[in-house]
This record gives sequence, structure tokens and C-alpha cells, in this order.
Amino acid sequence: MDQIQTPQAVHFGADDLPFVDIGDGSLLKVLHVRIGEGLWIIENIFQAGYEVQKHRHTGPVFGYTTSGAWKYKEYDYVNRAGSFLYEPAGSEHTLQCVEDNTRVWFQMYGANINLNANGEVDMVVDGMLTLNYYYAICEQQGLPRPKVLVES
Amino acid sequence: MDQIQTPQAVHFGADDLPFVDIGDGSLLKVLHVRIGEGLWIIENIFQAGYEVQKHRHTGPVFGYTTSGAWKYKEYDYVNRAGSFLYEPAGSEHTLQCVEDNTRVWFQMYGANINLNANGEVDMVVDGMLTLNYYYAICEQQGLPRPKVLVES
Amino acid sequence: MDQIQTPQAVHFGADDLPFVDIGDGSLLKVLHVRIGEGLWIIENIFQAGYEVQKHRHTGPVFGYTTSGAWKYKEYDYVNRAGSFLYEPAGSEHTLQCVEDNTRVWFQMYGANINLNANGEVDMVVDGMLTLNYYYAICEQQGLPRPKVLVES
Amino acid sequence: MDQIQTPQAVHFGADDLPFVDIGDGSLLKVLHVRIGEGLWIIENIFQAGYEVQKHRHTGPVFGYTTSGAWKYKEYDYVNRAGSFLYEPAGSEHTLQCVEDNTRVWFQMYGANINLNANGEVDMVVDGMLTLNYYYAICEQQGLPRPKVLVES
Repeated sequence: MDQIQTPQAVHFGADDLPFVDIGDGSLLKVLHVRIGEGLWIIENIFQAGYEVQKHRHTGPVFGYTTSGAWKYKEYDYVNRAGSFLYEPAGSEHTLQCVEDNTRVWFQMYGANINLNANGEVDMVVDGMLTLNYYYAICEQQGLPRPKVLVES
Repeated sequence: MDQIQTPQAVHFGADDLPFVDIGDGSLLKVLHVRIGEGLWIIENIFQAGYEVQKHRHTGPVFGYTTSGAWKYKEYDYVNRAGSFLYEPAGSEHTLQCVEDNTRVWFQMYGANINLNANGEVDMVVDGMLTLNYYYAICEQQGLPRPKVLVES
Repeated sequence: MDQIQTPQAVHFGADDLPFVDIGDGSLLKVLHVRIGEGLWIIENIFQAGYEVQKHRHTGPVFGYTTSGAWKYKEYDYVNRAGSFLYEPAGSEHTLQCVEDNTRVWFQMYGANINLNANGEVDMVVDGMLTLNYYYAICEQQGLPRPKVLVES
Repeated sequence: MDQIQTPQAVHFGADDLPFVDIGDGSLLKVLHVRIGEGLWIIENIFQAGYEVQKHRHTGPVFGYTTSGAWKYKEYDYVNRAGSFLYEPAGSEHTLQCVEDNTRVWFQMYGANINLNANGEVDMVVDGMLTLNYYYAICEQQGLPRPKVLVES
């Protein structure tokens, strides 16, 4: 009988997947999406002044910062090289990049519920949407489809 | 030195938490919420004709049916006693109860993004909202606050 | 460009997968395994006197009981029809079935670390092992390979 | 009625928690443990030659490397600054540090099942064990108990 085989680790080196521009020189790379689980892992390089609209998370998010500086407008602490950030499901905040070349991995479960100034839902951003966006930008730039680790 | 102690299982018998009415005799009980993880576990008793607006899940949902019959309008299969349903993150559907006294446990991660007829977001329903709603209905009915297992 | 498509729910009716005998008339069915996540969902029908060796869980386990009676030797409470049980990672206990035809779904993350009388590890039981065991028993009984929902 | 409040993100700067020596100048810091979920997040600084015994994971592990070089003996690829590694539940390997000051965050679910040369279980290492070990070393060194984010 065929048995299910032992799974193996999957490695991405720093240059194995391309970054794409998401505005004014800020960059995005999608590394891993487990669709059914709602898991998406991305890496960003933000430039000073880049903002992510106020949003609420529907699952936990874990941020690992390796250079630069970024913060949430609502809080004083600043994420710098070596910072670890835990964002529980239900937390809300507005991301603001403080220094150029701010580099962060985000391991995210669930969706970002983007909120307008009245606290109403503007948009829901999740792993599938972000993955399809990443694929589309790569295609526009004439890049081959990046070998993101996509699992059901 | 104080060590972190071994955790223990938590049991809820069938009658340990009250059901509250969520309309026309359909009932809700909230058993377990892990806020930061986005986990919420509820039990429903639906009456025939009860509907849950079309929604998209941001995390996986697991449904365990123990009596009656319910389905998604978009699909043919019917959940009956003994049915197991896996709803991956990103799946969309409209719940419809077919028989009275349809009883289901739902183990849910993330939020329900309720969608109107144009596919726009009407409302986001998550574990905290549902827990606070459950507490409020219990209070309105003069019941003591139910001892839901709520963890950060 | 091909986009990743919207995932859909997967339904198993009560009779869609076979139960196999795991000793003295106690039965096992494997419904869903997500290998990389360490998730496995099974259904058991235990007969009175059936025991599962003392074990420690490495991830959370959620038990949904629909008939009969079972307990952990170390605790007084009894799981009956309608009981919900949360077993956090790190919890330890010895399962004992009290009544015939005790039916339970277990949604499990991680492995069972089986412990002998000295508290030493006897065996590690996880979703892949259980799935391969289930496949093997089905094959021995001349059943076609059951269509368990197995995902990476 | 008291409502459950909105949770907030928790930030650890690079120097908010101490590293402790785990042998020959290799270092460990424990950042976050969610006991019931089996989640533990640590940061290591390994020195060349440091090894972690062959082990199998019972849940998924995510490795984020920020300096130096390390590998699994069983595979050729090398984790360097900017590497992302996904280790699915069930994967097995022997960690070997190749360069001094190799710095890695590991976000881990479940336990490491340490295996001896015969493939037998030597030891099970999980988040609680590692947390208690970290606390004990800190105490031995006269450090105050570090404010690890520990949640049930």
C-alpha cells in the first residue's frame, strides 16, 4: 500500500523570490500561503512615510523586523531591527513607516479588515487576494510566476 | 522558583451553559473563545427556515452536526446527524436550516464577513462580538453570566 | 493569468467513510488530515472498558461527544451526549470508556505522547500514523481506500 | 455589563529580554508562549558547531534567519540572513550551525521529539519545558524573571 510520506522543510533564500513595488518604492514579497488555514507569510521593505490604512485583524499576526523603523500611529513603541511584535486577533492599528528600508516579515492568520475614518469596513485584505496581486504585478513586470509555497 | 503548571482539560456537559434565543426559536450557546487566536466554539439549535446571511470565512471552520438537517443554498449536500463539514478560509455560502431542532457545533477560526446581494461587506461577525452578544442576551433574561471558557 | 480559486466546503455524511475495528468492537474513522499543520480529525465509537493509554498532547484537542459515556481516569467528570471537552497542549490523561456505543469526534492538533507507568515515552501517535493505520486496516478488510480529506 | 475589551499588540524590542547561554556561547531567548495552543516563539544566537539533536516536529515551525549560516545535516540548503524556512509537522532533521553569530527566530507549534541514533525517542522538548528552563537559567544568573509573554 502507498503510505503518505514524511514531509520535508521548504527553504527560501533571501533572493529566491522577487520583491514587487507597492507604491513609492515600498516592496512586497509573498513567501507562503496556506489557503484553507488562512495563513499568509510576506516580507515587506517599507520606505519612510509609507502607511497601511487602519485595520483590524481577524487572526493573530506575528511581525519580525530586521532593519529600519516602523510603528503604529496609535502607540508609542517603535519596531526596529530585532523587534518582535504579536498582534492578537481583534487588534486594530494604523501602520506607519518611520525610516527608509524598513524590513519586516509578517506571519499572518486571517484577514485585515480595513477601516475608514468612520470605522466602517473599506476593504478586506487576505492571503489569496495578496497572492493574486503579487502574481499580477510580477506578470506586469514580465517576471515569471514566482514559486510561492502555496498549499490548500 | 515557581514553574508554569501542567494545564488540564475543561469539560462542559450538555446543560452546563444556557442556550439563548437568536430569533424564532433558534438558539445559541458560546462554549469557548480564545481571543488572540481568533477561535470561537459555539453550539446552535436551528429551526426550519432559519438563515444565516451569505458570508465568507477568514479562517477555517469545522461543523459537527448531531440532529436535524441544514445546508448551504449554493450546494446540494445536506448536513444531518453525524455529518462533518470542513469550511476552509475563503469559502462563501448561505446557511439554511431545513428541519426543526437541527443541532450543530461550530469550531471557528477568524471572522464571518457577511455579504449583501451586491457582494459588499454588510458586517463582520467574530468571536468577541458573539461572546458579548451572548452575555448581553443572558443578562436581559436575568441569567447569571455564563461561565464560557474565555482565554486571551 | 490563472488566479487561485475560491475554496469550497467539504462535507462527509455519517456513512461516507467506513469505521474500522481497533479492538473488541471499538471503532475508528479518519475524516480529515492536514499533515503540515499537524491537524487530524477522527471519529470513534468506543465500547465499555476500552482504554487509551495515558498520554500527553503536544497541541490542543477538542472532543465532541454524541452518545454513551467516557472519562479520564484522573478526573471525575464524565463526557456524555452533548459534552464538549477542551484539552490544552500539555494536558495528560488516560481515556476510559464507561458505556457501550460511546461516540466522539476528536479534532486534534499535534501528537499524543503515550506514557508508560514510569512516565517514560512509549510511543508517539500522530495524524499520519493514524491515517496510514486506517488505510491499512481498510485494505486488510478488502475495502477500497477511503476518501479521507488529506491535505499537505 | 462589562464587555470583553479589544486586545492590543505586544512589542518586544531587541534588548527587552535577556539571552541566556545554552552551551559554548550559543544563546536562547523565549519571547512568547501560548501554552494551550502549543505555541512557542524563541530567538537563538548559535555559534559555529552548535548542534540540535535529530528531532521530529509535531506541529509546524517557521524559521526567520537574520545573520550567519545554519543548515540541516540531511539537506544541502543553507539558511542565511533573509532566509525563511517552513518545517511542516512530521518533518525530521538535525540542526547544525555553520557560522558564528547565527541569529534565528523560530515560531513553533507543538513539540520537538528528539530521536537517538536508533530512531527512538530520547526526549520531548516543548514550549513549557523551554520556558521553565529559560526562567531557571535566568534565576541562576541572578537575573529578574524575564517578562516573557505567557498566555494560557
